[in-house]
Amino acid sequence: MIITISREFGSGGREIGKRLADELGLAYYDGEIITLIAKETGMSEEYIQNISEKGVYPYTYQFAKSFLNSSPVQNSQIQVLVKQNEIIKKIASKGNCVIVGRAANAILKGEDTIDLFIYADMKSKVARCKQKADENENLSDKELEKKIVEVSKNREKFHNVVSNEQWGKKENYDLCINTSGVDIKSIITPLRMYIENWFRRN
Amino acid sequence: MIITISREFGSGGREIGKRLADELGLAYYDGEIITLIAKETGMSEEYIQNISEKGVYPYTYQFAKSFLNSSPVQNSQIQVLVKQNEIIKKIASKGNCVIVGRAANAILKGEDTIDLFIYADMKSKVARCKQKADENENLSDKELEKKIVEVSKNREKFHNVVSNEQWGKKENYDLCINTSGVDIKSIITPLRMYIENWFRRN
Repeated sequence: MIITISREFGSGGREIGKRLADELGLAYYDGEIITLIAKETGMSEEYIQNISEKGVYPYTYQFAKSFLNSSPVQNSQIQVLVKQNEIIKKIASKGNCVIVGRAANAILKGEDTIDLFIYADMKSKVARCKQKADENENLSDKELEKKIVEVSKNREKFHNVVSNEQWGKKENYDLCINTSGVDIKSIITPLRMYIENWFRRN
Repeated sequence: MIITISREFGSGGREIGKRLADELGLAYYDGEIITLIAKETGMSEEYIQNISEKGVYPYTYQFAKSFLNSSPVQNSQIQVLVKQNEIIKKIASKGNCVIVGRAANAILKGEDTIDLFIYADMKSKVARCKQKADENENLSDKELEKKIVEVSKNREKFHNVVSNEQWGKKENYDLCINTSGVDIKSIITPLRMYIENWFRRN
Protein backbone atom coordinates (compact mmCIF):
# COMPACT_ATOMS: atom_id res chain seq x y z
CA MET A 1 0.00 0.00 0.00
CA ILE A 2 1.74 3.14 -1.26
CA ILE A 3 0.00 6.51 -1.02
CA THR A 4 1.46 9.59 -2.66
CA ILE A 5 0.13 12.98 -1.70
CA SER A 6 0.59 16.12 -3.78
CA ARG A 7 -0.85 19.28 -2.35
CA GLU A 8 -1.21 22.98 -2.63
CA PHE A 9 0.47 24.89 0.17
CA GLY A 10 -2.06 25.44 2.97
CA SER A 11 -4.53 22.80 1.76
CA GLY A 12 -3.95 20.42 4.68
CA GLY A 13 -2.33 17.74 2.50
CA ARG A 14 0.42 17.11 4.99
CA GLU A 15 -2.09 16.60 7.81
CA ILE A 16 -4.10 14.21 5.64
CA GLY A 17 -0.92 12.24 4.89
CA LYS A 18 0.12 12.07 8.54
CA ARG A 19 -3.30 10.99 9.73
CA LEU A 20 -3.70 8.37 7.02
CA ALA A 21 -0.27 6.98 7.87
CA ASP A 22 -1.24 6.79 11.55
CA GLU A 23 -4.63 5.16 10.88
CA LEU A 24 -3.28 2.66 8.38
CA GLY A 25 -0.03 1.94 10.21
CA LEU A 26 2.14 3.10 7.29
CA ALA A 27 5.57 4.68 7.29
CA TYR A 28 5.37 8.43 6.69
CA TYR A 29 7.82 10.37 4.52
CA ASP A 30 7.91 14.08 4.04
CA GLY A 31 10.88 16.10 5.36
CA GLU A 32 12.45 12.71 6.10
CA ILE A 33 13.40 12.38 2.45
CA ILE A 34 15.41 15.59 2.59
CA THR A 35 17.26 14.29 5.64
CA LEU A 36 18.06 11.09 3.75
CA ILE A 37 19.31 13.00 0.69
CA ALA A 38 21.45 15.19 2.95
CA LYS A 39 22.93 12.16 4.64
CA GLU A 40 23.81 10.46 1.37
CA THR A 41 25.15 13.50 -0.49
CA GLY A 42 26.80 15.41 2.32
CA MET A 43 24.85 18.54 1.36
CA SER A 44 22.97 20.61 3.90
CA GLU A 45 19.25 20.06 4.39
CA GLU A 46 18.64 23.78 3.78
CA TYR A 47 20.29 23.63 0.40
CA ILE A 48 18.25 20.59 -0.62
CA GLN A 49 15.04 22.14 0.66
CA ASN A 50 15.78 25.25 -1.37
CA ILE A 51 16.12 23.30 -4.58
CA SER A 52 12.63 21.92 -4.37
CA GLU A 53 10.63 24.45 -2.39
CA LYS A 54 12.15 27.85 -2.99
CA GLY A 55 12.43 27.70 -6.72
CA VAL A 56 16.18 28.18 -7.08
CA TYR A 57 16.28 25.32 -9.52
CA PRO A 58 17.17 27.03 -12.80
CA TYR A 59 16.98 24.25 -15.37
CA THR A 60 14.28 23.66 -17.85
CA TYR A 61 12.74 20.26 -17.98
CA GLN A 62 14.53 19.04 -21.10
CA PHE A 63 17.90 20.21 -19.92
CA ALA A 64 17.53 18.50 -16.55
CA LYS A 65 16.28 15.31 -18.15
CA SER A 66 19.40 14.99 -20.30
CA PHE A 67 21.51 15.39 -17.17
CA LEU A 68 19.51 12.86 -15.22
CA ASN A 69 20.49 10.21 -17.70
CA SER A 70 24.17 11.07 -17.79
CA SER A 71 26.85 10.05 -15.36
CA PRO A 72 28.90 10.84 -13.45
CA VAL A 73 26.65 13.53 -12.06
CA GLN A 74 28.63 16.72 -11.64
CA ASN A 75 26.08 19.36 -10.84
CA SER A 76 24.94 19.37 -7.24
CA GLN A 77 21.34 20.31 -8.04
CA ILE A 78 21.05 17.47 -10.50
CA GLN A 79 22.70 15.24 -7.93
CA VAL A 80 19.91 16.03 -5.48
CA LEU A 81 17.27 15.05 -8.04
CA VAL A 82 19.02 11.79 -8.88
CA LYS A 83 19.42 10.93 -5.23
CA GLN A 84 15.79 11.79 -4.55
CA ASN A 85 14.70 9.44 -7.34
CA GLU A 86 16.81 6.66 -5.85
CA ILE A 87 15.56 7.20 -2.33
CA ILE A 88 11.88 7.41 -3.26
CA LYS A 89 12.15 4.21 -5.30
CA LYS A 90 13.91 2.49 -2.43
CA ILE A 91 11.22 3.61 0.03
CA ALA A 92 8.48 2.41 -2.35
CA SER A 93 10.14 -0.96 -2.86
CA LYS A 94 9.59 -1.64 0.85
CA GLY A 95 5.89 -0.74 0.39
CA ASN A 96 3.37 0.40 3.02
CA CYS A 97 4.09 4.09 3.11
CA VAL A 98 2.74 7.58 2.61
CA ILE A 99 4.98 9.95 0.67
CA VAL A 100 4.07 13.63 0.76
CA GLY A 101 5.34 15.86 -2.01
CA ARG A 102 8.66 15.47 -3.82
CA ALA A 103 6.88 14.53 -7.06
CA ALA A 104 6.63 10.97 -5.75
CA ASN A 105 3.58 10.23 -7.93
CA ALA A 106 5.65 11.02 -11.03
CA ILE A 107 8.76 9.22 -9.85
CA LEU A 108 6.70 6.11 -9.04
CA LYS A 109 4.70 6.21 -12.29
CA GLY A 110 3.66 2.68 -13.23
CA GLU A 111 3.94 1.33 -9.67
CA ASP A 112 0.79 0.32 -7.83
CA THR A 113 0.25 3.52 -5.86
CA ILE A 114 -2.81 5.62 -5.11
CA ASP A 115 -2.11 9.25 -5.95
CA LEU A 116 -4.02 11.98 -4.14
CA PHE A 117 -4.07 15.68 -4.89
CA ILE A 118 -5.22 18.02 -2.13
CA TYR A 119 -6.34 21.55 -2.93
CA ALA A 120 -8.49 24.34 -1.56
CA ASP A 121 -9.65 27.85 -2.30
CA MET A 122 -7.43 30.76 -1.24
CA LYS A 123 -9.58 31.74 1.75
CA SER A 124 -9.30 28.27 3.28
CA LYS A 125 -5.58 28.07 2.60
CA VAL A 126 -4.94 31.41 4.26
CA ALA A 127 -7.04 30.36 7.27
CA ARG A 128 -5.19 27.05 7.57
CA CYS A 129 -1.77 28.72 7.30
CA LYS A 130 -2.69 31.20 10.03
CA GLN A 131 -3.82 28.42 12.31
CA LYS A 132 -0.56 26.53 11.81
CA ALA A 133 1.78 29.54 11.90
CA ASP A 134 4.67 29.71 14.38
CA GLU A 135 4.36 32.25 17.14
CA ASN A 136 7.09 34.37 15.58
CA GLU A 137 5.58 34.25 12.11
CA ASN A 138 3.23 37.11 11.72
CA LEU A 139 2.25 37.55 8.11
CA SER A 140 -0.74 39.56 6.96
CA ASP A 141 -3.41 37.86 4.82
CA LYS A 142 -1.94 39.52 1.74
CA GLU A 143 1.56 38.29 2.54
CA LEU A 144 0.23 34.81 3.21
CA GLU A 145 -1.59 34.79 -0.13
CA LYS A 146 1.63 35.76 -1.85
CA LYS A 147 3.52 33.01 -0.05
CA ILE A 148 0.86 30.42 -0.92
CA VAL A 149 0.98 31.29 -4.61
CA GLU A 150 4.78 31.28 -4.56
CA VAL A 151 5.24 27.94 -2.82
CA SER A 152 2.65 26.21 -5.03
CA LYS A 153 4.27 27.74 -8.12
CA ASN A 154 7.63 26.35 -7.06
CA ARG A 155 6.15 22.93 -6.37
CA GLU A 156 4.74 23.00 -9.86
CA LYS A 157 8.11 24.00 -11.34
CA PHE A 158 9.89 21.31 -9.38
CA HIS A 159 7.38 18.71 -10.49
CA ASN A 160 7.83 19.70 -14.11
CA VAL A 161 11.57 19.15 -13.85
CA VAL A 162 11.08 15.59 -12.65
CA SER A 163 8.12 14.67 -14.85
CA ASN A 164 6.43 15.21 -18.19
CA GLU A 165 3.09 15.46 -16.41
CA GLN A 166 1.47 18.64 -15.29
CA TRP A 167 1.30 19.22 -11.55
CA GLY A 168 -2.26 19.53 -10.22
CA LYS A 169 -3.96 18.30 -13.40
CA LYS A 170 -6.68 15.93 -12.20
CA GLU A 171 -5.95 13.32 -14.87
CA ASN A 172 -2.60 12.64 -13.18
CA TYR A 173 -4.20 11.67 -9.87
CA ASP A 174 -6.61 9.03 -8.64
CA LEU A 175 -8.54 11.28 -6.30
CA CYS A 176 -8.57 15.07 -5.99
CA ILE A 177 -9.87 16.43 -2.73
CA ASN A 178 -11.04 19.99 -2.21
CA THR A 179 -10.52 20.81 1.47
CA SER A 180 -12.16 24.25 1.37
CA GLY A 181 -14.08 24.55 4.60
CA VAL A 182 -13.50 20.88 5.36
CA ASP A 183 -12.49 19.56 8.77
CA ILE A 184 -9.55 17.28 7.89
CA LYS A 185 -10.20 14.93 10.81
CA SER A 186 -13.70 14.19 9.56
CA ILE A 187 -12.61 12.92 6.15
CA ILE A 188 -9.87 10.52 7.25
CA THR A 189 -12.10 7.50 7.86
CA PRO A 190 -13.86 7.62 4.45
CA LEU A 191 -10.53 8.26 2.74
CA ARG A 192 -8.99 5.33 4.56
CA MET A 193 -11.85 3.13 3.35
CA TYR A 194 -11.48 4.39 -0.21
CA ILE A 195 -7.78 3.58 -0.12
CA GLU A 196 -8.25 0.15 1.46
CA ASN A 197 -10.71 -0.72 -1.30
CA TRP A 198 -8.25 0.53 -3.88
CA PHE A 199 -5.57 -1.91 -2.82
CA ARG A 200 -8.00 -4.73 -2.18
CA ARG A 201 -8.96 -4.91 -5.87
CA ASN A 202 -5.50 -6.18 -6.86
CA MET B 1 -28.40 16.49 1.22
CA ILE B 2 -27.93 17.49 -2.43
CA ILE B 3 -25.33 15.73 -4.57
CA THR B 4 -24.50 16.98 -8.06
CA ILE B 5 -22.56 14.73 -10.38
CA SER B 6 -20.72 15.94 -13.45
CA ARG B 7 -19.02 13.30 -15.51
CA GLU B 8 -17.11 12.46 -18.63
CA PHE B 9 -19.02 10.15 -20.96
CA GLY B 10 -18.08 6.55 -20.12
CA SER B 11 -16.62 7.32 -16.70
CA GLY B 12 -19.38 5.59 -14.73
CA GLY B 13 -20.70 8.83 -13.23
CA ARG B 14 -24.29 7.87 -13.85
CA GLU B 15 -23.84 4.53 -12.08
CA ILE B 16 -22.18 6.28 -9.13
CA GLY B 17 -25.12 8.69 -8.94
CA LYS B 18 -27.71 5.93 -9.10
CA ARG B 19 -25.99 3.80 -6.48
CA LEU B 20 -25.45 6.72 -4.11
CA ALA B 21 -29.11 7.68 -4.45
CA ASP B 22 -30.14 4.09 -3.64
CA GLU B 23 -27.80 3.77 -0.66
CA LEU B 24 -28.67 7.16 0.79
CA GLY B 25 -32.38 7.00 -0.02
CA LEU B 26 -32.27 10.12 -2.19
CA ALA B 27 -34.36 11.07 -5.20
CA TYR B 28 -32.45 10.56 -8.44
CA TYR B 29 -32.61 12.97 -11.39
CA ASP B 30 -30.99 12.47 -14.74
CA GLY B 31 -33.15 11.98 -17.84
CA GLU B 32 -36.07 12.78 -15.54
CA ILE B 33 -35.23 16.47 -15.87
CA ILE B 34 -35.62 16.32 -19.63
CA THR B 35 -39.03 14.71 -19.21
CA LEU B 36 -40.04 17.51 -16.85
CA ILE B 37 -38.83 20.21 -19.26
CA ALA B 38 -40.73 18.51 -22.09
CA LYS B 39 -43.89 18.37 -20.02
CA GLU B 40 -43.70 22.04 -19.07
CA THR B 41 -42.71 23.43 -22.48
CA GLY B 42 -44.57 21.08 -24.78
CA MET B 43 -41.36 20.40 -26.70
CA SER B 44 -40.25 16.88 -27.52
CA GLU B 45 -37.74 15.11 -25.29
CA GLU B 46 -35.51 14.45 -28.31
CA TYR B 47 -35.29 18.13 -29.12
CA ILE B 48 -34.41 19.01 -25.54
CA GLN B 49 -31.87 16.21 -25.34
CA ASN B 50 -30.27 17.49 -28.53
CA ILE B 51 -29.81 20.96 -27.14
CA SER B 52 -27.68 19.76 -24.27
CA GLU B 53 -26.03 16.59 -25.48
CA LYS B 54 -25.65 16.79 -29.22
CA GLY B 55 -24.12 20.22 -29.43
CA VAL B 56 -26.72 21.90 -31.63
CA TYR B 57 -26.81 24.82 -29.27
CA PRO B 58 -25.35 27.61 -31.37
CA TYR B 59 -25.11 30.52 -28.96
CA THR B 60 -22.01 31.80 -27.32
CA TYR B 61 -22.05 32.18 -23.62
CA GLN B 62 -22.47 35.96 -23.54
CA PHE B 63 -25.24 35.93 -26.07
CA ALA B 64 -27.19 33.26 -24.22
CA LYS B 65 -26.69 35.02 -20.90
CA SER B 66 -28.27 38.22 -22.18
CA PHE B 67 -31.26 36.21 -23.36
CA LEU B 68 -31.57 34.37 -20.07
CA ASN B 69 -32.20 37.65 -18.32
CA SER B 70 -34.75 38.97 -20.79
CA SER B 71 -38.41 38.17 -20.98
CA PRO B 72 -40.65 37.08 -22.51
CA VAL B 73 -38.50 34.26 -23.76
CA GLN B 74 -39.02 33.77 -27.47
CA ASN B 75 -36.33 31.42 -28.57
CA SER B 76 -37.09 27.78 -27.88
CA GLN B 77 -33.51 26.83 -27.09
CA ILE B 78 -33.22 29.62 -24.56
CA GLN B 79 -36.62 28.58 -23.22
CA VAL B 80 -35.24 25.11 -22.50
CA LEU B 81 -32.36 26.59 -20.53
CA VAL B 82 -34.62 28.86 -18.53
CA LYS B 83 -36.99 25.99 -17.77
CA GLN B 84 -34.08 23.75 -16.81
CA ASN B 85 -32.83 26.39 -14.35
CA GLU B 86 -36.28 26.62 -12.80
CA ILE B 87 -36.75 22.87 -12.54
CA ILE B 88 -33.32 22.19 -11.05
CA LYS B 89 -33.83 24.91 -8.46
CA LYS B 90 -37.25 23.52 -7.62
CA ILE B 91 -35.84 20.00 -7.23
CA ALA B 92 -33.04 21.32 -5.01
CA SER B 93 -35.45 23.29 -2.84
CA LYS B 94 -37.01 19.98 -1.80
CA GLY B 95 -33.51 18.68 -0.87
CA ASN B 96 -32.31 15.06 -0.58
CA CYS B 97 -31.48 14.33 -4.17
CA VAL B 98 -28.79 13.34 -6.64
CA ILE B 99 -28.71 15.33 -9.87
CA VAL B 100 -26.58 13.94 -12.69
CA GLY B 101 -25.38 16.34 -15.38
CA ARG B 102 -27.34 19.34 -16.68
CA ALA B 103 -24.77 21.73 -15.17
CA ALA B 104 -26.61 21.39 -11.84
CA ASN B 105 -23.47 22.28 -9.87
CA ALA B 106 -23.33 25.63 -11.68
CA ILE B 107 -27.06 26.28 -11.49
CA LEU B 108 -27.03 25.57 -7.73
CA LYS B 109 -23.88 27.60 -7.04
CA GLY B 110 -24.02 28.94 -3.48
CA GLU B 111 -26.44 26.27 -2.24
CA ASP B 112 -25.22 23.63 0.20
CA THR B 113 -24.44 20.88 -2.27
CA ILE B 114 -21.55 18.46 -2.66
CA ASP B 115 -20.29 18.55 -6.23
CA LEU B 116 -18.53 15.50 -7.65
CA PHE B 117 -16.69 15.21 -10.94
CA ILE B 118 -16.15 11.71 -12.33
CA TYR B 119 -13.49 11.07 -14.96
CA ALA B 120 -11.33 8.29 -16.35
CA ASP B 121 -8.68 7.59 -18.93
CA MET B 122 -9.77 6.80 -22.48
CA LYS B 123 -9.06 3.07 -22.21
CA SER B 124 -11.38 2.70 -19.21
CA LYS B 125 -14.09 4.83 -20.80
CA VAL B 126 -14.05 2.75 -23.98
CA ALA B 127 -14.21 -0.46 -21.93
CA ARG B 128 -17.12 0.85 -19.87
CA CYS B 129 -19.04 2.01 -22.96
CA LYS B 130 -18.61 -1.40 -24.58
CA GLN B 131 -19.89 -3.14 -21.49
CA LYS B 132 -22.97 -0.91 -21.38
CA ALA B 133 -23.67 -0.86 -25.14
CA ASP B 134 -27.04 -1.94 -26.51
CA GLU B 135 -27.10 -5.16 -28.46
CA ASN B 136 -27.70 -3.26 -31.68
CA GLU B 137 -24.93 -0.75 -31.04
CA ASN B 138 -21.74 -2.09 -32.46
CA LEU B 139 -19.11 0.62 -32.56
CA SER B 140 -15.40 -0.06 -32.98
CA ASP B 141 -12.96 1.21 -30.34
CA LYS B 142 -12.02 4.08 -32.64
CA GLU B 143 -15.65 5.07 -33.17
CA LEU B 144 -16.30 4.85 -29.43
CA GLU B 145 -13.30 7.09 -28.73
CA LYS B 146 -14.66 9.63 -31.17
CA LYS B 147 -18.10 9.49 -29.56
CA ILE B 148 -16.60 9.87 -26.06
CA VAL B 149 -14.63 12.94 -27.07
CA GLU B 150 -17.65 14.42 -28.83
CA VAL B 151 -20.15 13.91 -26.01
CA SER B 152 -17.75 15.28 -23.40
CA LYS B 153 -16.98 18.25 -25.63
CA ASN B 154 -20.70 18.99 -25.93
CA ARG B 155 -21.21 18.68 -22.19
CA GLU B 156 -18.41 21.19 -21.76
CA LYS B 157 -20.00 23.57 -24.29
CA PHE B 158 -23.40 23.21 -22.67
CA HIS B 159 -21.92 23.88 -19.24
CA ASN B 160 -20.21 27.00 -20.51
CA VAL B 161 -23.51 28.37 -21.78
CA VAL B 162 -25.07 28.03 -18.33
CA SER B 163 -22.08 29.03 -16.24
CA ASN B 164 -18.96 31.18 -16.08
CA GLU B 165 -17.05 28.24 -14.64
CA GLN B 166 -15.01 25.80 -16.63
CA TRP B 167 -16.42 22.28 -16.88
CA GLY B 168 -14.09 19.63 -15.44
CA LYS B 169 -11.75 22.08 -13.69
CA LYS B 170 -11.11 20.54 -10.28
CA GLU B 171 -11.45 23.86 -8.44
CA ASN B 172 -15.16 23.87 -9.33
CA TYR B 173 -15.86 20.55 -7.57
CA ASP B 174 -15.55 19.21 -4.05
CA LEU B 175 -14.24 15.80 -5.01
CA CYS B 176 -12.86 14.55 -8.33
CA ILE B 177 -12.83 10.80 -8.78
CA ASN B 178 -10.73 8.99 -11.35
CA THR B 179 -12.54 5.73 -12.13
CA SER B 180 -9.83 4.29 -14.41
CA GLY B 181 -9.70 0.60 -13.62
CA VAL B 182 -11.97 1.11 -10.63
CA ASP B 183 -14.90 -1.17 -9.79
CA ILE B 184 -17.71 1.34 -9.18
CA LYS B 185 -19.50 -0.87 -6.67
CA SER B 186 -16.43 -0.97 -4.42
CA ILE B 187 -16.21 2.80 -3.98
CA ILE B 188 -19.83 3.52 -3.10
CA THR B 189 -19.54 2.88 0.64
CA PRO B 190 -16.50 5.15 1.20
CA LEU B 191 -18.09 7.82 -1.01
CA ARG B 192 -21.32 7.57 0.94
CA MET B 193 -19.36 8.09 4.17
CA TYR B 194 -17.48 11.03 2.70
CA ILE B 195 -20.77 12.63 1.70
CA GLU B 196 -22.50 11.91 5.02
CA ASN B 197 -19.59 13.59 6.79
CA TRP B 198 -19.85 16.52 4.44
CA PHE B 199 -23.43 17.27 5.38
CA ARG B 200 -22.93 16.46 9.05
CA ARG B 201 -20.53 19.39 9.47
CA ASN B 202 -23.27 21.95 8.96
